[in-house]
Amino acid sequence: MTETLRPGSTIGILGGGQLGRMLAVAASRLGLRTHIFDPIEGAPAGDVAHVVTTAGYDDESALSAFARSVDVVTYEFENIPTEALDAIEAIRPIRPGREALRVSQDRLTEKDYLSGLGLRTAPYAAVDDTASLKEALDRIGTPAILKTRRFGYDGKGQARIGSPADTDSALAAMNGAPAILEGHVAFDREVSVIAARSLGGAVACYDPGENVHEGGILRTTTVPARLNTAQRTDAALLAGRILNALDYVGVVGVELFVTAQGLVVNEIAPRVHNSGHWTQNGCTVDQFEQHIRAIAGWPLGDGQRYADVEMQNLIGDDADRALDLAQEPRAALHLYGKAEARPGRKMGHVNRILG
Amino acid sequence: MTETLRPGSTIGILGGGQLGRMLAVAASRLGLRTHIFDPIEGAPAGDVAHVVTTAGYDDESALSAFARSVDVVTYEFENIPTEALDAIEAIRPIRPGREALRVSQDRLTEKDYLSGLGLRTAPYAAVDDTASLKEALDRIGTPAILKTRRFGYDGKGQARIGSPADTDSALAAMNGAPAILEGHVAFDREVSVIAARSLGGAVACYDPGENVHEGGILRTTTVPARLNTAQRTDAALLAGRILNALDYVGVVGVELFVTAQGLVVNEIAPRVHNSGHWTQNGCTVDQFEQHIRAIAGWPLGDGQRYADVEMQNLIGDDADRALDLAQEPRAALHLYGKAEARPGRKMGHVNRILG
Repeated sequence: MTETLRPGSTIGILGGGQLGRMLAVAASRLGLRTHIFDPIEGAPAGDVAHVVTTAGYDDESALSAFARSVDVVTYEFENIPTEALDAIEAIRPIRPGREALRVSQDRLTEKDYLSGLGLRTAPYAAVDDTASLKEALDRIGTPAILKTRRFGYDGKGQARIGSPADTDSALAAMNGAPAILEGHVAFDREVSVIAARSLGGAVACYDPGENVHEGGILRTTTVPARLNTAQRTDAALLAGRILNALDYVGVVGVELFVTAQGLVVNEIAPRVHNSGHWTQNGCTVDQFEQHIRAIAGWPLGDGQRYADVEMQNLIGDDADRALDLAQEPRAALHLYGKAEARPGRKMGHVNRILG
Repeated sequence: MTETLRPGSTIGILGGGQLGRMLAVAASRLGLRTHIFDPIEGAPAGDVAHVVTTAGYDDESALSAFARSVDVVTYEFENIPTEALDAIEAIRPIRPGREALRVSQDRLTEKDYLSGLGLRTAPYAAVDDTASLKEALDRIGTPAILKTRRFGYDGKGQARIGSPADTDSALAAMNGAPAILEGHVAFDREVSVIAARSLGGAVACYDPGENVHEGGILRTTTVPARLNTAQRTDAALLAGRILNALDYVGVVGVELFVTAQGLVVNEIAPRVHNSGHWTQNGCTVDQFEQHIRAIAGWPLGDGQRYADVEMQNLIGDDADRALDLAQEPRAALHLYGKAEARPGRKMGHVNRILG
């Protein structure tokens, strides 16, 4: 038994960045309204939402009013304070559910969870101080990466340890936050699989995309990824295993390392994902609509890939080239409406139909 | 010299129906905001607009405030009162311009204008009373259609005259409004060409679509239309002639009858058009984005057709089938968020990728 949100219903979205913006647009295609909650005035998603609440995640009365005004709540980022989630969940369902957030908010919990499902991850160990870091390095070796367990994104909160000499500076970079040491994985390429699970338990996977990162930030995703049939099947099965284990509802992004020994899970994101933006121009139903369908209790849509696509992020002053990109044949431009182009800031992306 | 609206600029849209809604979504892809002006509370486009003004077209202070808050003004329907346009144009540019509105607001003016460009139309005559109607019927013959010169859409304000016996009832149906008698055109099929002209004068045409109407309302548009090469070329040239003559900026919809003697222009709509909705799933840049690009001073985008598509309107209780349509492979569903499904009301559409 699943309820289905009818046209005119409202979806609450925590976070008003570009992901929230594209979720709001997808919701509109299904006749649904959106209400954006974001602490910062002028969030990009506010341009295309029916209602915007500008308030902090510690503002319990704003959170309650927000929850009461919507039919279901979703989010564009995983680092939402637990108290805020509690306040909302007392009033409306949150999808994807709390277990997905609990697992993905903490890199250590996530790795334990994935290992528990029988999936391969990089070698890892919890690090709280110099002693535990030395112990971890003895076991895992170098090169390795020390990461804060929580609140990292786009390469932030990370320090590379090339040799034992880097130990102290790496630990200092954590600013006393609980950390995790991750060993090096010798990978051929990085891919990600964007998958969805409906309220009724149906699972659908998009064709995996091949990712290129620069400076910790995703630069391009290309479909099809260079994978053999077995790897392609493994990626889908693995995503399905995670979705079912979490009794997940919505879209998930699973980043994978492709190695000679098989697929290694790098991390999971319980939301639409930058590496799934290509679906906007390669599929009839994109990842944003698929997510809205899932959390709204709708059937999942046709996620088949009908074109080869390269998605390129427009970062910082890349966006200055917007007018040139707008004239490129077979290129679909997506800008996020951010006024200020700071270095490293994602300003938009372009999907190029290949071939 | 053309100015280009930068991300964060605002486009004002007169009319908040489904066309305004899809224009707002397209604007968001280019990083632009929208401000909707509509007399009716809860207009569909309001769900995805940055700002909504609910006020009448006779509210001069609301119109002025609206105009001052935006960078350029466009519209989703052509029957905007002249006084409202005057109030806006004193403050901000209106695109497409006033000449396009003047011509298309009045069926008689439109036919005179098209004939003046050397384009073929149905035989027609102005009708103001019984005497002029009889004179017109003597010249044009039956069957013919009597139409109000202004404010008609979706078959409203029209009366068919099958024989001279229908004369009085047809005239009565006009309610004393100035009318036009249009003679019958023996056509093989109806097609429409959606074309665009940029602020700099560049013209681009989408591949013509073939239309099927039922009860005066568009039912389906299919691309490619069954046209030979000469007809296809004629359609594009004819659209270009109209756009250039009007010094037009934006997207126009030109409805054509295909006859053994060539293409006959039925009517033009100075806006995005229902028969162009297929472009959302057949092209990299759809008609809505093309229109926004044009009026924002951007270069026109790639309007090449990359798929065969059938667009089907969901009218009245057709929308009850939304969940079934949502599960159809290769089908993209678009709902307009209208709560009440009245008979004849356009509730959404579905674009089916063919083949």
